[in-house]
Amino acid sequence: MFNSVLIANRGEIALRIQRACRMLGLRTIAIYSEADREAAHVRHADVAVCIGPAPAIRSYLDGAAILLAAAATGAEAVHPGYGFLSENAAFAERVTQAGLTFIGPSAACIRTMGDKVAAKRAMRAAGVPCVPGPDASLPDAPEAIRHIAAEIGYPVILKAAGGGGGRGMRIVEQESGLLDALALTREEARRAFGNPEIYVEKFLGRPRHVEIQILADGHGNALWLGSRDCSLQRRHQKVLEEAPAPGLPEALLVEVGERCTEACRQIGYQGVGTFEFLVEAGAFFFIEMNTRVQVEHPVTEMTAGIDIVAEGIRVARGEPLSITQSEIACRGHAFECRINAEHPDSFAPSPGRITRFDVPGGPGVRVDTHAGAGTVVPPYYDSLVAKLIVHGATRQEALARLTVALSEMRVEGVSTNLPLHRRIVTDPGFMEGGVDIHHLEAILRRGTA
Amino acid sequence: MFNSVLIANRGEIALRIQRACRMLGLRTIAIYSEADREAAHVRHADVAVCIGPAPAIRSYLDGAAILLAAAATGAEAVHPGYGFLSENAAFAERVTQAGLTFIGPSAACIRTMGDKVAAKRAMRAAGVPCVPGPDASLPDAPEAIRHIAAEIGYPVILKAAGGGGGRGMRIVEQESGLLDALALTREEARRAFGNPEIYVEKFLGRPRHVEIQILADGHGNALWLGSRDCSLQRRHQKVLEEAPAPGLPEALLVEVGERCTEACRQIGYQGVGTFEFLVEAGAFFFIEMNTRVQVEHPVTEMTAGIDIVAEGIRVARGEPLSITQSEIACRGHAFECRINAEHPDSFAPSPGRITRFDVPGGPGVRVDTHAGAGTVVPPYYDSLVAKLIVHGATRQEALARLTVALSEMRVEGVSTNLPLHRRIVTDPGFMEGGVDIHHLEAILRRGTA
Repeated sequence: MFNSVLIANRGEIALRIQRACRMLGLRTIAIYSEADREAAHVRHADVAVCIGPAPAIRSYLDGAAILLAAAATGAEAVHPGYGFLSENAAFAERVTQAGLTFIGPSAACIRTMGDKVAAKRAMRAAGVPCVPGPDASLPDAPEAIRHIAAEIGYPVILKAAGGGGGRGMRIVEQESGLLDALALTREEARRAFGNPEIYVEKFLGRPRHVEIQILADGHGNALWLGSRDCSLQRRHQKVLEEAPAPGLPEALLVEVGERCTEACRQIGYQGVGTFEFLVEAGAFFFIEMNTRVQVEHPVTEMTAGIDIVAEGIRVARGEPLSITQSEIACRGHAFECRINAEHPDSFAPSPGRITRFDVPGGPGVRVDTHAGAGTVVPPYYDSLVAKLIVHGATRQEALARLTVALSEMRVEGVSTNLPLHRRIVTDPGFMEGGVDIHHLEAILRRGTA
Repeated sequence: MFNSVLIANRGEIALRIQRACRMLGLRTIAIYSEADREAAHVRHADVAVCIGPAPAIRSYLDGAAILLAAAATGAEAVHPGYGFLSENAAFAERVTQAGLTFIGPSAACIRTMGDKVAAKRAMRAAGVPCVPGPDASLPDAPEAIRHIAAEIGYPVILKAAGGGGGRGMRIVEQESGLLDALALTREEARRAFGNPEIYVEKFLGRPRHVEIQILADGHGNALWLGSRDCSLQRRHQKVLEEAPAPGLPEALLVEVGERCTEACRQIGYQGVGTFEFLVEAGAFFFIEMNTRVQVEHPVTEMTAGIDIVAEGIRVARGEPLSITQSEIACRGHAFECRINAEHPDSFAPSPGRITRFDVPGGPGVRVDTHAGAGTVVPPYYDSLVAKLIVHGATRQEALARLTVALSEMRVEGVSTNLPLHRRIVTDPGFMEGGVDIHHLEAILRRGTA
């Protein structure tokens, strides 16, 4: 049972976690890099400690510096947020070994889910539907490899066991390209993840990206909070998300949701987590689990009416979940736009000082941001400056509200992707709902934002 | 069926109505006074027309100027908002006579509810519980007056039939003071409302102020959206509201809510409206109906998940309500703080230019405001600069969230009542819930905010 939390992150998620902590009566300890000296998460915290200079490797990724800050400030728990050290099993272990609570699942769970082959094996054992392909790394023998790929059927996709989030993958269209592709992918995986293990799966051509938010406590309770659709991606980066995933049969979602919660119970998962799936022809295929809070969690909060971050902290304190599955009644529809400081055409980051920052308000509108007029967007970190989230009684109402909110929002001093979002919300395919993961790139090919 | 709306108001409610109109695809026409030239509601409208100088009597209260602006811009409907001409039956009539749609109930309904004696008679006929006392103005004969008051039992309260909103009232403790008090109140009513009629009611000593939000369409459908508690008042001005009213039995609320919707059907009410009650010893007593959208409507929107302003516009377009009573499932708890530009101790208005305006965000937080850094608060109108609304799964969670949000909010350049709100949310009586209408004044007597 802890009463103070060190938030090992920056930007909007640091502020988001602070708000949840303060609501629960917990003391908040911020860490920051020299580049973030003036940041909102520093200003609002009870205590703030500078842990080093930018870039992140010298501060937000420096586990030892973070643990020193925790010791110096008497922090009793560490919340990793997303990105940075949030899925680093060794860091979770060090936090625990230092006698602090890591707000998230056990290091063992993080490790299993970080190894995509082990994760798939665990999920298949729990009855979660997976992409066709063996739950094992590829062997060395060329003949065995060819046999496995042929069994699955081309095209197949090679994936690094240590990868994830869209990194370390290569599509193979036919047998002739298989072995060369494997060698290349293996070499990249060795360099990028320190792990040359590769596995192979059926390649799905036009899937949607659908995910299930879960919450689990240390008392054997796990529940799912509906679905999200995050198909609007550019180079595997989500741009706009919604909840629920439109057009999927409720019975199918319930079936998948129950498998996910069952998997949580089987692996002893605790905290906030997300099961990511590809959905093609009405079938779900597990791709990976994120063992942390996600950028897009607010769309679920808006529909489920539950503070996901606060629940994650409560269960880390040893409390049971404050709700049961039967009490969850998702309502309406929600969208989230990731507003990035980037050039609208080249997508290159656009760091600098924000000179004007008008955010929309009113019913069904939520803005999660650490930015305002005067905020400096440093060049060292991701370019997310705000999340604009809207809710409506129906998808149509939410979309109309989003369109109005986007027209009201105004950011000056840095470039943003607001023009892209304004374009997405008037795209006929998006307006209809249920587009696949290639849709945004198709929009982009049709002209400049 | 109209496609453009003139919004006959200013400030946050003008912006609120604009957002609803734009979401419904309607063209918006703003009006403004010379003092509001730079206002947000002017900036965001499709068209904006200056209709005269401040004060309001020469612009926002000038019905002829508003109708000229409507004609000049091709407006097909008029939304009055709250205050100004919103409960002026003659204005509603003129709008209709000009061939436009008045977004609200019929002039006849506004007139009946504006006459507090007629309103009480209509409500009693519909089975809505009323404060003990006859549904008629007091006669002239002293003996008859004394008899009526004695029947009710002292203390009694004298009220002007043309009054409302806390104006034109006088408490009488015993018979000896009755006739003098009546003469004074009659004279004041003649001067203030042009109507000397007075009625008498039982005076309730420590009631709560509880109200029921209703929606009704032109097809005989009416529904209620739960309760609000607005007991925190200073000089009859609401300061902080919540939904639902805490601690009242659900069965009692359902009974009262159904009487209210029945009354709507009986009087042919259409649009958004509120039945206001005093609640003492677990009993409801009708005091008046507001035939317009209220400042505090967002707390109901947050719990019911319904856009009340948009529904009001839809039914004015002739559409049926988009929901039925059985589909309404209020969820969680919501608070609203009225952030006024006023001196925290004297409560005198604090007009001027806002130099800094940091609003909170995150889950369950909604800010309705027309203000920002650089906004000028003119001295001519009410001092409301923002409504801070929060929602939580429980009253406790909502209150914790409100406390955090209030601590994040920062307004500079003008004084505000933020210190008072911060004090209210830590007051033990308020934290427990269910305080009466004198509670805020008791807090104020205990020391400066």
